[in-house]
Amino acid sequence: MAAPRPAPEASTGELPVALDAMGGDHAPGEVVAGAKRATREYGIPVVLVGAPEAIGDTGGLEVIPASEVIAMDDDPASSVRRKKDSSLVRAAEAVRDGRASAMVSAGNTGATMASALLRMGRLKGVVRPAIATPIPQLGSHPVVLLDAGANAECTAAMLVQFAQMGAAYSSARYGVEKPRVALLSIGEERSKGSALVKDTSALLENGVGVDFVGNLEGRDLLHAEADVVVTDGFTGNVALKTLEGSLRFFMDTLLAVFAGDDEAKQAAEVMLPRLAPLAAEFDPDSVGGAMLLGVNGVCVISHGSSNEHAIVSALRVARDLAVGGLAARLGEAVRPAA
Amino acid sequence: MAAPRPAPEASTGELPVALDAMGGDHAPGEVVAGAKRATREYGIPVVLVGAPEAIGDTGGLEVIPASEVIAMDDDPASSVRRKKDSSLVRAAEAVRDGRASAMVSAGNTGATMASALLRMGRLKGVVRPAIATPIPQLGSHPVVLLDAGANAECTAAMLVQFAQMGAAYSSARYGVEKPRVALLSIGEERSKGSALVKDTSALLENGVGVDFVGNLEGRDLLHAEADVVVTDGFTGNVALKTLEGSLRFFMDTLLAVFAGDDEAKQAAEVMLPRLAPLAAEFDPDSVGGAMLLGVNGVCVISHGSSNEHAIVSALRVARDLAVGGLAARLGEAVRPAA
Repeated sequence: MAAPRPAPEASTGELPVALDAMGGDHAPGEVVAGAKRATREYGIPVVLVGAPEAIGDTGGLEVIPASEVIAMDDDPASSVRRKKDSSLVRAAEAVRDGRASAMVSAGNTGATMASALLRMGRLKGVVRPAIATPIPQLGSHPVVLLDAGANAECTAAMLVQFAQMGAAYSSARYGVEKPRVALLSIGEERSKGSALVKDTSALLENGVGVDFVGNLEGRDLLHAEADVVVTDGFTGNVALKTLEGSLRFFMDTLLAVFAGDDEAKQAAEVMLPRLAPLAAEFDPDSVGGAMLLGVNGVCVISHGSSNEHAIVSALRVARDLAVGGLAARLGEAVRPAA
Repeated sequence: MAAPRPAPEASTGELPVALDAMGGDHAPGEVVAGAKRATREYGIPVVLVGAPEAIGDTGGLEVIPASEVIAMDDDPASSVRRKKDSSLVRAAEAVRDGRASAMVSAGNTGATMASALLRMGRLKGVVRPAIATPIPQLGSHPVVLLDAGANAECTAAMLVQFAQMGAAYSSARYGVEKPRVALLSIGEERSKGSALVKDTSALLENGVGVDFVGNLEGRDLLHAEADVVVTDGFTGNVALKTLEGSLRFFMDTLLAVFAGDDEAKQAAEVMLPRLAPLAAEFDPDSVGGAMLLGVNGVCVISHGSSNEHAIVSALRVARDLAVGGLAARLGEAVRPAA
């Protein structure tokens, strides 16, 4: 991440980011701490959403009161319908009502999607919103993978929109001028893959406003020759969790070997400072969370175990993209050619 | 892997394993070397299939001549139809004709499947064969993942058969008495996943002769609470390649850091011998290759970059499973309850 930028001029009139103070494994403590730090260090206006008595000291931040909490294991659809005064639903309403520029939650992912979808609504023309997740790349900007799990079943038309929105998002977030879009498949050859991949590939080649560079495989995800990787939400979720699981497995295994005996511990003292910068590049707390693309507003989904640092990252991303007009850019991207 | 066992008594009457001498990036050199070593060290009878002039010195092994070669990038279906005198097709015919107990190839995966399917045929009752791939687990026997890529499109009925065959294979290969079978999904809850996962889950709970333990996620693959993981061939292939890619990425990154400066090089001298046994557990050359389950015979698909050691592993697996009557056990597993 870049060094802290100077606090901006008095942000007159800038809408705050609505932060679900009750969502996540470490809420409200770490979440509220993140809000305070984001305001202090980056000048980001934040409004906390939740039960004032649970939040405690707000450090002067405004609060939108909400008496209910959607738990991590609540059923998404029914809890959003039932808990109308939950922090998640109220955060989404704040965006809908023009009281906030964006929403951020580290809570129940499904319920965050449902709240955003039901309260903000979809962007005009978007069939289904998708979760876009950054996959870190050594020495380069992250690759955007979507759909990372919003839609277990997809059509080719949906995947084309994911390609369009993913490209617009890559430009907005990472400044990529002409994002290269690839389809995740089981072979680079066009003859391989599911019917969904082949149908989508045919559509993407047909001039839908994205730079389609062909298929790539699971083994390419950490050094992708693309800026955006498109897939259905089932495959995307499996791939992403496989990636996370194997990197975590490898780290744990390495640390166990480092702790194995005295000689190894000495070697670890040499190695760990050299490995730390690499580990930081892959730290999910630094990448700023996933984004729900296709709703009428900015919605950042931070991971459930978010700490203060992760919340700061998520707030920075949410604010930057709201200020940059992400929703309008996505709406433009999915508009059919005249 | 276990220590070399003593060469068995004269294997009177034991059929040889048919080895595609022309298949793989290092064929025929490493492939033929592997055959010689498997025979010498493990007493495994092998018949080489390929062009005698390319094979050269056979070390006394029998050869089934085949004048054609299916290249790694040939189209599987059409090359198998066209190249009737190819080493792959002739190897499959040797099994069909009772001249060999099993076939092994490190060549074109799709063409290996097509040869086995067209020449050996399917086991009675099997809708579609599947590729079963071992995923190493630290300190335990590998988990069997299937389908790893034979069928990009699957039905729930196919996945039930994969579960049945996978369980029989886990028993035959790793001696697991009552293999636990899991479905790969995007959440452990039964409410999550694609329609295919939900339909399959309902069927597996309904008494199809396997111990179904529920859904697991991509992040569980390297420490799975299951012996068999069932999925469609598209998802399975993406997951497996993501796993391979991230492990390779981590290894490459670690080795680069180890080579970075003199102090790191010294630390590497301490660490590498401690990491080597772990790396060996994950060495694809040692796991013996993937298996095509559901054809009427034993067919081992070794990876394209197989060296001598990988070929020896593949031949050992092929011979053990042929002697153990794998095909009959699989046929029994998919038979509907009377």
